[in-house]
Amino acid sequence: MNQSSESEFFDALQFNDKGLIAAIIQDFKTGKVLMMAWMNAASIRLTLETGKTHFWSRSRNRLWMKGESSGHIQSVKQIFLDCDGDALLIRVDQSGVACHKGYLSCFFRALKNEEKLSITEDRLRSPEAIYIKKDS
Amino acid sequence: MNQSSESEFFDALQFNDKGLIAAIIQDFKTGKVLMMAWMNAASIRLTLETGKTHFWSRSRNRLWMKGESSGHIQSVKQIFLDCDGDALLIRVDQSGVACHKGYLSCFFRALKNEEKLSITEDRLRSPEAIYIKKDS
Repeated sequence: MNQSSESEFFDALQFNDKGLIAAIIQDFKTGKVLMMAWMNAASIRLTLETGKTHFWSRSRNRLWMKGESSGHIQSVKQIFLDCDGDALLIRVDQSGVACHKGYLSCFFRALKNEEKLSITEDRLRSPEAIYIKKDS
Repeated sequence: MNQSSESEFFDALQFNDKGLIAAIIQDFKTGKVLMMAWMNAASIRLTLETGKTHFWSRSRNRLWMKGESSGHIQSVKQIFLDCDGDALLIRVDQSGVACHKGYLSCFFRALKNEEKLSITEDRLRSPEAIYIKKDS
């Protein structure tokens, strides 16, 4: 399938100057915001084709499937596009935890008094337990 | 107040090469994701000082307070930082609607079959009603 004018969805996407679009990942049952990552056209296409979230890693310069090493995949339930077309909201069924640090959400630190940070979630996995599968 | 090492929060922020950080805005009561916008250090500082969200407009190249023309301000309830420090999640009490097109959320379009988009929310305000206050 191409990304031509046959796709109203792709036509509405506004990629940035690096060919990327921000994707907010939200738990479809609880509404908890799990993470934010970046997608390019190829990772969006893979996400649509497989039903599992795929992203573009800016640091590693490659496509990756969420959970490809940890097993903590995200099954897509709904995809929304914002008014400007430059951000996606993807509601998912999260397997395991979203954060590579072992928390359900990457947003596990909250701003507190005197501009200090506090951890607001229990760590559900040890990072070592997540990464042990890294090369499998 | 400065942004020096006295602030654990500011120290943890990872601004991009344009000095910006992504901010996801979520309704604190319903969990609905309302919008995504960009903040620079000055707009974060203003947000903290006033308790109302402020952003950096990349198109207009200036600071703005959400609701400065529409009256649809966002009162900050909680601020979270992600594991990489390059995204904020801000839970707010939204006055009126978040989207300049009159919808409660900017994410009012969902991907449907055959890559078409469908509108998933009622339009609560006419864009004209929002913009009538633009220069006041």
